[in-house]
Amino acid sequence: MGSAVAQCPHGITSHSTGNLGQNKLGYSSRCSKFPCQLDFARFGLLHQGSSAASSSDHSTEFGRRINAVPDMDDMFWDKVPTPLLDMVENPIHLKNLSVQELKGLASEIRSELSCIMSEKPNSLKASLAVVELTIAIHHVFHAPVDKILWDVGEQTYAHKILTGRRALMRMMRQKNGLSGFTSRFESEYDSFGTGHGCNSVSAGLGMAIARDIKGKRDRVVTVISNATTLAGQVYEAMSNAGYLDSNMIVILNDSRRSLHPKIEQEPKTSITALSSTLIKIQSSKSFRKFREAAKGITKRIGRGMHELAAKFDEYARGMIGPQGSTLFEELGLYYIGPVDGHNLEDLICVLQQVSSLDSMGPVLIHVITEDNHQDAECNEKIESDNPQEGMITSSTRTYSDCLVDSLLMEAEKHKDIVLVHAGMEMEPSFQVLQETFADRFFDVGMAEQHAVTFSAGLSRGGLRPFCIIPSTFLQRAYDQVVHDVDRQKIPVRFVITSAGLVGNSGPVYCGAFDVTFMSCLPNMIVMAPSDEDELVDMVATAAQIDDRPVCFRYPRGAIVRTDHFMHPGIPLEIGKGRVLVEGKEVALLGYGAMVQNCLKAQALLSRLGIEVTVADARFCKPLDTELLTLLCENHKFLITVEEGSIGGFASHVAQFIALNGHLDGTVKVMNIRNFHFW
Amino acid sequence: MGSAVAQCPHGITSHSTGNLGQNKLGYSSRCSKFPCQLDFARFGLLHQGSSAASSSDHSTEFGRRINAVPDMDDMFWDKVPTPLLDMVENPIHLKNLSVQELKGLASEIRSELSCIMSEKPNSLKASLAVVELTIAIHHVFHAPVDKILWDVGEQTYAHKILTGRRALMRMMRQKNGLSGFTSRFESEYDSFGTGHGCNSVSAGLGMAIARDIKGKRDRVVTVISNATTLAGQVYEAMSNAGYLDSNMIVILNDSRRSLHPKIEQEPKTSITALSSTLIKIQSSKSFRKFREAAKGITKRIGRGMHELAAKFDEYARGMIGPQGSTLFEELGLYYIGPVDGHNLEDLICVLQQVSSLDSMGPVLIHVITEDNHQDAECNEKIESDNPQEGMITSSTRTYSDCLVDSLLMEAEKHKDIVLVHAGMEMEPSFQVLQETFADRFFDVGMAEQHAVTFSAGLSRGGLRPFCIIPSTFLQRAYDQVVHDVDRQKIPVRFVITSAGLVGNSGPVYCGAFDVTFMSCLPNMIVMAPSDEDELVDMVATAAQIDDRPVCFRYPRGAIVRTDHFMHPGIPLEIGKGRVLVEGKEVALLGYGAMVQNCLKAQALLSRLGIEVTVADARFCKPLDTELLTLLCENHKFLITVEEGSIGGFASHVAQFIALNGHLDGTVKVMNIRNFHFW
Repeated sequence: MGSAVAQCPHGITSHSTGNLGQNKLGYSSRCSKFPCQLDFARFGLLHQGSSAASSSDHSTEFGRRINAVPDMDDMFWDKVPTPLLDMVENPIHLKNLSVQELKGLASEIRSELSCIMSEKPNSLKASLAVVELTIAIHHVFHAPVDKILWDVGEQTYAHKILTGRRALMRMMRQKNGLSGFTSRFESEYDSFGTGHGCNSVSAGLGMAIARDIKGKRDRVVTVISNATTLAGQVYEAMSNAGYLDSNMIVILNDSRRSLHPKIEQEPKTSITALSSTLIKIQSSKSFRKFREAAKGITKRIGRGMHELAAKFDEYARGMIGPQGSTLFEELGLYYIGPVDGHNLEDLICVLQQVSSLDSMGPVLIHVITEDNHQDAECNEKIESDNPQEGMITSSTRTYSDCLVDSLLMEAEKHKDIVLVHAGMEMEPSFQVLQETFADRFFDVGMAEQHAVTFSAGLSRGGLRPFCIIPSTFLQRAYDQVVHDVDRQKIPVRFVITSAGLVGNSGPVYCGAFDVTFMSCLPNMIVMAPSDEDELVDMVATAAQIDDRPVCFRYPRGAIVRTDHFMHPGIPLEIGKGRVLVEGKEVALLGYGAMVQNCLKAQALLSRLGIEVTVADARFCKPLDTELLTLLCENHKFLITVEEGSIGGFASHVAQFIALNGHLDGTVKVMNIRNFHFW
Repeated sequence: MGSAVAQCPHGITSHSTGNLGQNKLGYSSRCSKFPCQLDFARFGLLHQGSSAASSSDHSTEFGRRINAVPDMDDMFWDKVPTPLLDMVENPIHLKNLSVQELKGLASEIRSELSCIMSEKPNSLKASLAVVELTIAIHHVFHAPVDKILWDVGEQTYAHKILTGRRALMRMMRQKNGLSGFTSRFESEYDSFGTGHGCNSVSAGLGMAIARDIKGKRDRVVTVISNATTLAGQVYEAMSNAGYLDSNMIVILNDSRRSLHPKIEQEPKTSITALSSTLIKIQSSKSFRKFREAAKGITKRIGRGMHELAAKFDEYARGMIGPQGSTLFEELGLYYIGPVDGHNLEDLICVLQQVSSLDSMGPVLIHVITEDNHQDAECNEKIESDNPQEGMITSSTRTYSDCLVDSLLMEAEKHKDIVLVHAGMEMEPSFQVLQETFADRFFDVGMAEQHAVTFSAGLSRGGLRPFCIIPSTFLQRAYDQVVHDVDRQKIPVRFVITSAGLVGNSGPVYCGAFDVTFMSCLPNMIVMAPSDEDELVDMVATAAQIDDRPVCFRYPRGAIVRTDHFMHPGIPLEIGKGRVLVEGKEVALLGYGAMVQNCLKAQALLSRLGIEVTVADARFCKPLDTELLTLLCENHKFLITVEEGSIGGFASHVAQFIALNGHLDGTVKVMNIRNFHFW
């Protein structure tokens, strides 16, 4: 057993590269003498030693992460014993475990996750729901040769634990720590980065086609969730998968935590002994062969008959399947389910059956999971913990809270205000809106494209819609903003939340580009409040504008003042900024919340005897050209400060100044942005 | 009958505003003494006279259009007699026509369309397919109080003829002429602008919800096509419509001109006498009431039973319906069909049944239409006409032709090149690619989101994908470009076609924003060829880049040289522009095809004795800062020339120059763009 380290030395890089058959040899020697928590400090070195095959990006990136690993003694102070998990450094170590052992392993992962994630109960629930599914996938398939793709970051935690990242789990979503999502820069077991929750089928299909073209035989497995099935891309991808007919396995992890309450009211698909038998028949080789044969025969009889027979088969199976099953069949996927997502025997049986077929086309396996399927101990722990996961404590007022109050005030004035919300999840602040507006609040979930055009329709129907979408998710509806709103000059008021940096949510949720892609539109008014008072005023401004679209962005997090008194919103003059502090020589021109940083800088510089001007641009489009001219004429330096990418506020300012000859004098211009890179 | 003008005087503005009941009075007096071709010159005045209710935008816009109406005698020189159509100035005149008369009207509209559209056979086919459907809709519903929305521009021509725009049809897609799409600025019968082919259900649902909130009772009818059902937004919208359960009618115009050849191979849903009877049962009030009652009863029995009963009902109906029917049922729409789209009796019967129900929720009516359902005379005319509709004549080489040849050459070098194409329709040039690459060319149709992530998957699977999407349709996949490609630094090569102005295709297809929204991405290389030789080089450059994403844009239309010899592509140095003509004092810095305009300007100026420098930027990101510095140091004026919006090339240049103090010297900077407005 002294050779254990040599046999699984790479940690995150794989044990096998390209040789699918290797795992059939059955590694019996496991790193039992080197429980991974003791071994992990060596990751950096080991990884670099084995980095010949991986890109330099990987090793640099990872080197940084490793430096952040805290003292091991601190990490495991409250750890319960996990003898099985300690033996698993990467998925190959699952291969020879019995179902009983795998069940034990599931229990240990649950306990580990509960410890690690105790402060994030929502994430914990989502990650616990897929523990058995993750184990079954890694038991049956051979990652990283087989490609496993995930739609939802939170569902990948068990996957991360099983693929060599166990010791780093506590530093998830921390600086230089693990990402909260899968990332190809983090591990070769992550075939594709989890993005905005609906990319895995498209990316998986691409990999499946690439495999076919290259004549390889590895398998592609994508795990989607019922929340992501609200997004249109999933349908596009499934329809194309059905058409291209390449072998791939789509697993629908159905936890029924749908954004549509109506769907939650429906009875959850029940798993009975009968359904357990039925799925085994559905997934069996002989049934599939029988079905193909039957299709072949009826095809020969004639077109009409073929269609009828295919339909009969489909509906006969539909009758025994749950609601939704024929939807997937219509899109061209072979439906198998429902499978109990916590029954390891069933999961393994179905996955093995499906993986053993050479030619099958795309298959959808419908897996039902329970968020609350966990140890009683964990449950208690979760219930007693803070439910406002990742949020500022309830006493802290956020910009979103201000938005809510402000919208409630405006709704008094304008009875025709309606609210549309889209995005991956809803901020808790907006629940007040949902309750107060009841029939006038529409949360459409991950259907941003629809949300934008739907808002345009509401506006054309004579109402006054506010469309609330996080900056990064607005990207998914850009074409709709361009053609269904801006080109038609329809008054829709976009509230862009989570604009700029978003703390530990990382680049996937980062709102970097909205100023750039909204400011280039001909009819759009683009603004950003510098504090909560201005936010209230901008809500009033937006409510009043009724002849063109308008948008404003605000950041995630706490507002400026703690003793905030809510004043009624006063509409601002369009395209007018303001000077907050008059100084000389240097002018700081802030856009949005960054004005606060300008004020802080001004205060610090003031102590050093340097008096700088601070101005609040308020509008990126139309720009306050008078203010810009004034600032240029009276200062030696003009510094723009914003939280956005190139092409946005600073570019608009630079272009105006350059074109209007303001740089012919003595003023020099500078930009401060924080999105030069991800 | 002397009062006919007073009764239908407004032409495009409506006869009734807000009064749903008015049409029940049944206008029997029609403008038979004022055939509309004689009356149309008065439109402008009449419209302005009645413009109190409409916005000033409308009247100005329309005023301009009217000025362009050509001499009436010229217009109708080859017109066949259209006695019925001459009586119809707006849809209210259809109300009292018998089915027989409506059939005659359909025939007249077909003949009229065939005359008008004789040079555009593809558009003609699409517009002829929906003549009966359009008549039936306007016969049963009461536009503009009832809202009629369309997904596809070409299918709105009969609608335009019936809604007061007959005399203007010949100037469709011409300067100051009618738009090829519906537009709210053109007519109040156009409730919403046709956009990128999948917005009508979302917009219609918005209008339906607005109506409910306002307590009105008007109907919302949206017409979608089977091609647009490839787009994800349609699923998002239908799923939300099913959930919100508001009354609206979605008509699926199924002409089976699908982009998926496999789907076309399938037998077209057959319309038999039986199906004609069945749809009448399905749409009947009593059947629907029976179904609701049955649901109510089973609901009380218990959840499981309710689900089973609902399922039984669904599948039982699914068994008698065509393939696809349960897909819509699963999404929550009540499916009725298939209906013969050329049988006016059936269409009117079904629409009347559906419109008479007060509480029905969303209904999908599946209408089967034939492209070739037309008079033999028309058919002959179409066949004999030029099939390359709207295209440059075959002897003219386009940029797309060059791209195709260049890709074929690169594919010799790189055997792993694969091609993904998305967008509303495919340029004829690409058919060569489709044939040559066969298994390596994927045309996914209107599923741009999927196309981009699918390309990323192909890349991760070890292939070398080029993703070909028109500029304006790339907007629909922006989030996927950001998160599934750029953030993950995956080498996907975007070929952005139809960049910039697109001639008579107008703003819906105009590619104005791609430079702006692509150049702000951290990892993307953004370039544009100035001519066909550079295009070939850029294809080679893109093929070679294998560590990050890259994009290049080219315009619609003919290449520069007529005697073009195809040289093998040579990869360009990244971020390096070039000076084409050395001059002094003034430097023209062009980006993309606009470099040609710079050269033309240089030639003209040269004749006047003014020698200007012409430079070709080649790259917008990374910028050639050395070249920029050089141009600034040696010239008094630097003029950037591009076909794009603010935030793009000019902004990047201005920002670099302003920040690096190049304006402190003597140089002044100017921009020439052509996208200040739509």
